[in-house]
Amino acid sequence: MTRLLNKYEGNPVVSPADVPGGGAMQVFNPGAIKLNGEYLLLMDVADLSACYHFRLARSRDGYAFTVDDQPVDWPPSDPDFEEQNRYDPRITKIGDSWYIMFAARNDRLGVRTGLVSTRDFVHFERHPNCSELNNRNGVLFPEKIGGLYARLDRPMGNPHVDPANIWISYSPDLVFWGRTKPVLQVRPGEFWDAQKVGAGAVPIRTPQGWLEIYHGVEKTCNGFIYRLGVCLLDLEDPSKVIARGRNCVLWPEHGYEDVGRSGTTVFTCNALLEEDGETVKIYYGAADRCIGLAEGKLSDLLAACYT
Amino acid sequence: MTRLLNKYEGNPVVSPADVPGGGAMQVFNPGAIKLNGEYLLLMDVADLSACYHFRLARSRDGYAFTVDDQPVDWPPSDPDFEEQNRYDPRITKIGDSWYIMFAARNDRLGVRTGLVSTRDFVHFERHPNCSELNNRNGVLFPEKIGGLYARLDRPMGNPHVDPANIWISYSPDLVFWGRTKPVLQVRPGEFWDAQKVGAGAVPIRTPQGWLEIYHGVEKTCNGFIYRLGVCLLDLEDPSKVIARGRNCVLWPEHGYEDVGRSGTTVFTCNALLEEDGETVKIYYGAADRCIGLAEGKLSDLLAACYT
Repeated sequence: MTRLLNKYEGNPVVSPADVPGGGAMQVFNPGAIKLNGEYLLLMDVADLSACYHFRLARSRDGYAFTVDDQPVDWPPSDPDFEEQNRYDPRITKIGDSWYIMFAARNDRLGVRTGLVSTRDFVHFERHPNCSELNNRNGVLFPEKIGGLYARLDRPMGNPHVDPANIWISYSPDLVFWGRTKPVLQVRPGEFWDAQKVGAGAVPIRTPQGWLEIYHGVEKTCNGFIYRLGVCLLDLEDPSKVIARGRNCVLWPEHGYEDVGRSGTTVFTCNALLEEDGETVKIYYGAADRCIGLAEGKLSDLLAACYT
Repeated sequence: MTRLLNKYEGNPVVSPADVPGGGAMQVFNPGAIKLNGEYLLLMDVADLSACYHFRLARSRDGYAFTVDDQPVDWPPSDPDFEEQNRYDPRITKIGDSWYIMFAARNDRLGVRTGLVSTRDFVHFERHPNCSELNNRNGVLFPEKIGGLYARLDRPMGNPHVDPANIWISYSPDLVFWGRTKPVLQVRPGEFWDAQKVGAGAVPIRTPQGWLEIYHGVEKTCNGFIYRLGVCLLDLEDPSKVIARGRNCVLWPEHGYEDVGRSGTTVFTCNALLEEDGETVKIYYGAADRCIGLAEGKLSDLLAACYT
């Protein structure tokens, strides 16, 4: 049994101290893309009030990152829901636009799935929030399926008690959503994904199906452990799970993954497929405090769905 | 200060013993309409397994009801979500169809808002479920607003801890829903509606606005108390609350309202406006066990929104 994802020896690739100004407590759970040959991480950054903004880190080689001086120019709230916090962006390219799905939080009412788009990561455009209340980890598929946009998400009950599962919804226009149905459930038993499962990376299209790298949660007497695993969804009907790996593929094991705002946590909003069509880079949140890089092969991750 | 809603002296109007066969533990929270001169109550009926089906009670005068021998011929589940239980129907007439919004429950995954229509209360047609997970008390407005169908509902967190509020969503086609936003929140303080508020009756159109009779919950050390109150929503933009009564208009006070499956509870899914345009009949669930009737005047309920 070999390790499928290798962690970069220089991890973490971004830490709070890398944020100019010294006012960041945590940087984590970025969306990750390549734009004009540059790696861009759109990161959760917690200031000293523990409020989140999005900020970019940039790299030419994918390993050495520089954090922007300022947050991105985030657009005003959807007028239907005042957004006091935002986090966990997933970035999906459709046509010439990048769509950012994220958790939009009103501190009194709760959290929903927000949507913002950009063409250049300089100017950002607000769209109506997508989900109802108490639903996050929204991930937009990179193409229409059956003529409709599709998103995975994770509706919540009480986050500390109820299991949380991956669901799917469809939309003709990114405004009205429906045909909502469950996709992947927590695994019965004492597995690593027995307490919660949620969509992670933007699904990668392969001839075998949509590869989805998802997070699974184990609940212990001392709290939650977040790990990553893989499943394969049907290309035509992504509510159908073709295969689901028994084993997790990334887990906390080092200090920077074990201790932080939320310890024993690795979590991803991205899986970046390189131009070779085989190398996958995952810029993962480590303990809700910094960002690590793990690299592997698409073919290995696909095979892992069947183990 | 006079009482706005008078309870019928012959209450309850329907009890479990009225259900033919003797196998009903509870009958409550009906939708209520008039069809061809007949009052129809579409009721939650709990059998001895505590599973719910819908059954009709009929009356010529609105006071003496006879319960059908059999449940209604309820259509199979939405294939996207196996419905093992269903309850709390709200019945809205649009055109020639009656649309029934209700709580559709899968015992493993949770509860959503279901939708079934009928033209005759004999044949029923299934539509896709409307809401995401953990959302019930869906109430469809009786006309399109700004060219869109509209529903009130109550997304939930943990039902025993989190406050629950009234929200609204819109749809071009009853399949895809969006423009979701909050409408009415729990009242800060120790009021009768400080813990939860949820849509109750199908809104009644008046020149002053949509009259909505909603339920409010007070949380005590011994459990919840459910009461009914009134608010007025803007005709063009029903997410705007024009007025909200300070006082509840119906509350538990008698034995059949105080003791049952869920004691100290009055709850409604209906408010039936008679042909005189003034008399309102509310067939309310009492303690989740039987059905009471309360009568009042539309003008009084409207005025109560401003007290």
